[in-house]
Amino acid sequence: MYPDSLKNLIESFKYLPSVGEKTAERYAFSVLDMDEDQIELFVDSLKNIKNRIHPCKNCNVLTEDEICSICSDDFRNKNVLCIVEDVKSVFLFEKIGMFKGLYHVLKGLISPLDGVNPEDIGIDKLLDRIQNEKFEEIIFAFKPSIEGETTALYIKKILDGLNLKITKIANGVPIGADMEYVDSLTLERALSDRKEV
Amino acid sequence: MYPDSLKNLIESFKYLPSVGEKTAERYAFSVLDMDEDQIELFVDSLKNIKNRIHPCKNCNVLTEDEICSICSDDFRNKNVLCIVEDVKSVFLFEKIGMFKGLYHVLKGLISPLDGVNPEDIGIDKLLDRIQNEKFEEIIFAFKPSIEGETTALYIKKILDGLNLKITKIANGVPIGADMEYVDSLTLERALSDRKEV
Repeated sequence: MYPDSLKNLIESFKYLPSVGEKTAERYAFSVLDMDEDQIELFVDSLKNIKNRIHPCKNCNVLTEDEICSICSDDFRNKNVLCIVEDVKSVFLFEKIGMFKGLYHVLKGLISPLDGVNPEDIGIDKLLDRIQNEKFEEIIFAFKPSIEGETTALYIKKILDGLNLKITKIANGVPIGADMEYVDSLTLERALSDRKEV
Repeated sequence: MYPDSLKNLIESFKYLPSVGEKTAERYAFSVLDMDEDQIELFVDSLKNIKNRIHPCKNCNVLTEDEICSICSDDFRNKNVLCIVEDVKSVFLFEKIGMFKGLYHVLKGLISPLDGVNPEDIGIDKLLDRIQNEKFEEIIFAFKPSIEGETTALYIKKILDGLNLKITKIANGVPIGADMEYVDSLTLERALSDRKEV
């Protein structure tokens, strides 16, 4: 029914997360209304994304250079290392702009049930780095989950002899949440981690 | 914060309808996980869409050829012409597959308030076509709106001398709708257009 090139574009949009037939059609039709310039930028940025972007040699954050802009920033606090499960987490932290230390990005979290073992998520590289650089504090910033806890415990155990301060980000009731919509596990955690005011 | 090529890709996705910063970021990150082949298909289909696709010389339906597959299909009923406001409507009709006549795609609907006059939506080309081909029935399939009514009335007036059957698609309560959610204008129309059973 659709001309071939339109059909292919619709199929391509369907590769994107949670994009079904209808949305893909809508996107494809909107491309028909775009300027040549816009389409060219779109095409170029799609092409460049695989050619130019790769993980930072040091911390795995995505970069177009050998070493990412965070690792090569002299004004960051080189004594604190925040370990995250994916690159997206780094961008989330950078958006709030509060954390001024360095990052290390793992390739996911340990999950024996899914066959993901410590060697699969690049823990060797992390440990090498911790041994070579002089960190004073290591922060775990994983999603609250069994996999997050497992990964944090595993790394903590290995680091135990190194005289490092090891912390993890707080869990609890999210700001702005209605209490009635907070799940019981979160509430439990918020209660047991309560702080003096 | 993001490397340039990632930033550009996010900007490109934001050109798509109802895609904001967050969704664009999500899409861009998903592209990072795609195979080279998928990205290549994506790039090619984006490039081809403007080069290869254009309106059918006859009816304005999008096609990669001079004459679209509908106009050149010998099994279609050449006596009935369905006039629609955009190409998308044609694809909607073709999906249900019930209509076997021909189409003519206008460039929108007459809307004096928005400065859209009859000459802007390609009515000349439509009238030429109606005079040259031997239609018996003309169907208006516009969205129910003042612009749709105006456009239908305008064309009907011009065609009045030509001894054509002129119809329009029915308005009324949509199938599956809860009566309580049907707006009053639709209900009014459904009542005045009631059919004997």
